[in-house]
Amino acid sequence: MSAIPLTDTSKLCVHTITTKPWSVEEAMDKYAEAGVGGITVWRQWLEGRKISEVGDQLRACDLEIVSLCRGGFFPAATSQGLEDAIEDNRLAIREAAELGAPMIVLVCGAVPGQALDESRKQIADGIAAALPLAEDYNIRLAIEPLHPMYADDRSAINTMASANEVCDRLDHPLVGIAADVYHIWWDPDLAEQIRITGEKNRLFAYHVCDWMTPTTDLLNDRGLMGEGCIPLEEIRAMVEKAGFTGFNEVEVFSDRWWARDQDEFLTEIKKAYLNHT
Amino acid sequence: MSAIPLTDTSKLCVHTITTKPWSVEEAMDKYAEAGVGGITVWRQWLEGRKISEVGDQLRACDLEIVSLCRGGFFPAATSQGLEDAIEDNRLAIREAAELGAPMIVLVCGAVPGQALDESRKQIADGIAAALPLAEDYNIRLAIEPLHPMYADDRSAINTMASANEVCDRLDHPLVGIAADVYHIWWDPDLAEQIRITGEKNRLFAYHVCDWMTPTTDLLNDRGLMGEGCIPLEEIRAMVEKAGFTGFNEVEVFSDRWWARDQDEFLTEIKKAYLNHT
Repeated sequence: MSAIPLTDTSKLCVHTITTKPWSVEEAMDKYAEAGVGGITVWRQWLEGRKISEVGDQLRACDLEIVSLCRGGFFPAATSQGLEDAIEDNRLAIREAAELGAPMIVLVCGAVPGQALDESRKQIADGIAAALPLAEDYNIRLAIEPLHPMYADDRSAINTMASANEVCDRLDHPLVGIAADVYHIWWDPDLAEQIRITGEKNRLFAYHVCDWMTPTTDLLNDRGLMGEGCIPLEEIRAMVEKAGFTGFNEVEVFSDRWWARDQDEFLTEIKKAYLNHT
Repeated sequence: MSAIPLTDTSKLCVHTITTKPWSVEEAMDKYAEAGVGGITVWRQWLEGRKISEVGDQLRACDLEIVSLCRGGFFPAATSQGLEDAIEDNRLAIREAAELGAPMIVLVCGAVPGQALDESRKQIADGIAAALPLAEDYNIRLAIEPLHPMYADDRSAINTMASANEVCDRLDHPLVGIAADVYHIWWDPDLAEQIRITGEKNRLFAYHVCDWMTPTTDLLNDRGLMGEGCIPLEEIRAMVEKAGFTGFNEVEVFSDRWWARDQDEFLTEIKKAYLNHT
């Protein structure tokens, strides 16, 4: 099964970290000029700015604000640590509201050596504690399952099934899933889990990039779509079949691409989006 | 749940690759001297030797030969490639018989860009084709699920569930699973899958090491037990509860440890085995 080809960039969203050398001001100008439809803003890109003004600038550029990235990192060795994490997620919710972002991506967190089940419990508890404020501002919280190679210190939620389990436990219309191909492409249960996620109206976001062979760095060696081995068109077909009509968000962490001219990179992103996504 | 402490090294098995700088002759002398109970021999260590003689030497050292490592790598882009892989696995079976190893560990293989389902089918077909010879020599074939970060080019079998599925399909007493903590520790379904594996009498091998934070290399940055975040005693308790009474095989790929004096390393392996496994 393959998806219908993408013929324009109206559903292309780029994460500010993808073009890391650019400030949010540069990024918005360049993205808008390139015809990119949406932007996901990483919180670091808002430092030192009046957030509501950045939101106004983005809207003036006709860029749809898809998400604020990222909240999460709930698990902690102490109850104070968990409380601090919840407070930071509440801050992220206020920032998203100020920016005009309807959603926050959650990288849920993990503590090396702490039992993953305990971390998963803390994640559910942490999200539950932040939910009332998310309701006040109507901000969606998207749990992003992270690749199992990040289970030590980045996320104890490593599969769609595991994310769905947390969603089931919380059972709230504002809690859903951000499906990122980098983290989930290998999963033998992927098609079924995406189907379930859609059926439960919780497929909130879809992120794309590619898996390089060899991968030389666990964090910053992602490929642009088409450079690697992920069956992107098949996974997009699953996502669309599950009812997803949102943006295809390009989230590439790559020392290799960051070292290149970013205007050229943005041109390559568009090509890769139209031909290999 | 935690396992009963290990009080001696009779069930300690070391893979020759763990002490990579040593030849098989050095390794067998050193292991035997250290009171190591078993050895898993990697095929490269047999190059240029008469294999039956190595087997005799190992038995003379009172080292139990636990496994020959490794077969597998079935998936291929061409039918000739698959046929060649099957032939190599038949060779491995003959080598195991010559050595006196009752089992071969299978790293099943993957082809970048080939659909994982197709690779999984080729893996099952490949094992099925090698099975008659395995029957002739009574050699067990242990499918080792590999961490999802190796799904691109090393193995399309990335979870215990996926390995169990191939075993179910082949349904043969000589086909089972080698459970390596490095690959499976993150799996939310681990306890249940280990239970099922034991129940079906196919938990053939148990490999230990640790996961480092940070991990700086996808292949050769494994930790010694206790250096990382894997809940080793809990997983051993699961394995033993599932009926496993075999060796705890230390398989550490580590540029860091290989650069050290290997006698000191073997002392550390024993300490880590007794205190953190």
